[in-house]
Amino acid sequence: MFKITHKDKHTNARVGVLETLHGTVETPEFMPVGTQATVKALSNEEVKYCGAQIILGNTYHLYLRPGMDVIKNAGGLHKFMSWDDPILTDSGGFQIFSLATLMKAKEEGVEFKSHVDGSKHFLTPEDVVRLQFELGSDIMMVLDECLHYPCPKDKAGRSLELTNKWAVRSKEEVARAGERCEVKSERLLFGIVQGSTYPDLRKESAEELVCIGFDGYAIGGLSVGEPKDLMYEMLENSVRYLPVDKPRYAMGIGMPHDFFDAIEMGVDMFDCVVPTRNGRNGAAYTNEGRLIIRNGKYSRDLRPLSESCDCLVCKNYSRSYIRHLFNTEEILGLRLTSLHNVYFYVNLLKRIRASIKNGTFLELKKEFKEKVF
Amino acid sequence: MFKITHKDKHTNARVGVLETLHGTVETPEFMPVGTQATVKALSNEEVKYCGAQIILGNTYHLYLRPGMDVIKNAGGLHKFMSWDDPILTDSGGFQIFSLATLMKAKEEGVEFKSHVDGSKHFLTPEDVVRLQFELGSDIMMVLDECLHYPCPKDKAGRSLELTNKWAVRSKEEVARAGERCEVKSERLLFGIVQGSTYPDLRKESAEELVCIGFDGYAIGGLSVGEPKDLMYEMLENSVRYLPVDKPRYAMGIGMPHDFFDAIEMGVDMFDCVVPTRNGRNGAAYTNEGRLIIRNGKYSRDLRPLSESCDCLVCKNYSRSYIRHLFNTEEILGLRLTSLHNVYFYVNLLKRIRASIKNGTFLELKKEFKEKVF
Repeated sequence: MFKITHKDKHTNARVGVLETLHGTVETPEFMPVGTQATVKALSNEEVKYCGAQIILGNTYHLYLRPGMDVIKNAGGLHKFMSWDDPILTDSGGFQIFSLATLMKAKEEGVEFKSHVDGSKHFLTPEDVVRLQFELGSDIMMVLDECLHYPCPKDKAGRSLELTNKWAVRSKEEVARAGERCEVKSERLLFGIVQGSTYPDLRKESAEELVCIGFDGYAIGGLSVGEPKDLMYEMLENSVRYLPVDKPRYAMGIGMPHDFFDAIEMGVDMFDCVVPTRNGRNGAAYTNEGRLIIRNGKYSRDLRPLSESCDCLVCKNYSRSYIRHLFNTEEILGLRLTSLHNVYFYVNLLKRIRASIKNGTFLELKKEFKEKVF
Repeated sequence: MFKITHKDKHTNARVGVLETLHGTVETPEFMPVGTQATVKALSNEEVKYCGAQIILGNTYHLYLRPGMDVIKNAGGLHKFMSWDDPILTDSGGFQIFSLATLMKAKEEGVEFKSHVDGSKHFLTPEDVVRLQFELGSDIMMVLDECLHYPCPKDKAGRSLELTNKWAVRSKEEVARAGERCEVKSERLLFGIVQGSTYPDLRKESAEELVCIGFDGYAIGGLSVGEPKDLMYEMLENSVRYLPVDKPRYAMGIGMPHDFFDAIEMGVDMFDCVVPTRNGRNGAAYTNEGRLIIRNGKYSRDLRPLSESCDCLVCKNYSRSYIRHLFNTEEILGLRLTSLHNVYFYVNLLKRIRASIKNGTFLELKKEFKEKVF
């Protein structure tokens, strides 16, 4: 279900094809984040226009609102949100340990209060797999305990034990759920490497997950406040213990320049709220660097957000106009920056794939890094 | 520049073609409101998709933000906002007398404080014409004094005197501005009938404007809090004194059912914030009536907003999904209801034009009014 089609000669970068129930995804790929069944501020038509092959949903958020009954009533998440292509659903682990009020994380599962209405909930790793089956995810993530940074080593070690036990149970639940379901074999389950900022714990985590055996491996617990160098060190100390023939997914990464370093290590999948969240705040990402559109210097600037971009926004609208939209709090402003950013992100990954195919990955990396980023 | 192509046999309804510098507009037509150089929450591509032939801009708002220097720098409002079709600009009279803090309305002009930053401004009727020339409006509106409801007759009478003097000066300024400008002959100027809720003042206003001579005539000062019956009475008492061969524009009207009564009187143009403002609040207008999408009864309703609508929103998204988007404050929710509403409004006018052409206007009116509206 994952086939590597091209390998870079000088690095661990590779192009692969991941097969899912709703179609194939060519990797490396950036997945726009559609937390609550919508990539924020964009329509599905726009997300498709950007070229996205796969988007993310979030089990925690969707479980709380609209609730599983509403999504099941629609025939699953794809039909509910009118998106026919692959969807990866995060387990909600990160949200339960950051957004919700955590009440208790014990071996059986996790108790928390909803960030929406304070209601109490208890979810086991098995529940989280079942929820993702109900959503109809193409790629499911195991429930994991997410640690803050910094985290003492003894605590990180105990947490890892719990996370690994949950990983075993998640895989077992997929087998059981699969037996009740006709499309068992095509739903993928990814494990998540944790271990905070300790190389030996990262190694232990990766090796145990590989021992359990998953369809793909995510690297979690990064980009949570640690220095960038340490993030890359942990990423490398996770990826190197993962099987070459399975997809690797760096969760929550990243900024445009991050893709090059991570892909060089052999990472295949990414997600990040930066293009949409920062887009809504008026930051546009371009080949020429980041542009803060509210800046007064753009008030009469008739150039597009990026002169090297061929997206609809850059074809039709000027910086001067988009700045005016932000200054007057018009919704179209944040729509345009979000659309441009997602287009830029998805197409940057497309360019990276092409560069791996034609042997110019390091040249593209050099060219890109010499710019403002 | 305005040619009537079809007349209804039983009423004063008519189909006409209005020629402007940026193309022709078939009337009767609804003009989506793009106050600050954007039809709220929609892109220009979407407004065009809805079939809108002409949109509105607002001189008061655009004069304050982004300011005339920014719009002139872009080459006018059309280029600034990337809209190639006709634009009508309101004079800003209504906004100066409602949104801004009015300081003094005297014969020379009007002094006010900006609602944005409290800065003081003074504008004469001549200034307002010049501003609209700078915007590059296809249809300009004269500056008028807008009265609240109710208004004592003596005050309404004095106000009317002022408004008529301003109308004369506005027309004179167009001639002068036209001499400085190559495209003089194709820019249209509309007068605005006022007179509050007094039939004799409405008559006086209309007759004086006709005496001055404008390219079209708007009926202003309606839909400002007066009872609906009185609104229609005043509309009729304005329209009947206006020349048959000029376009008539009912400002700020209306609700979907309003169009039929006004068009029956011989009104040709409409604008209203209802489809976008109410859309942003979750009200969808359909052939079957108004639908408040937050209502709990829609939580599992897999039907589109309107089963008789063929817009993109109704083709792709369910009530259940749109309700979820509103409940989670996702921007896509208000985008979808706004898009559907503008499509519904513009296409309702299109259907009305077709009905006048084929002699079924009264049948369509009856059919429509028998429904929920």
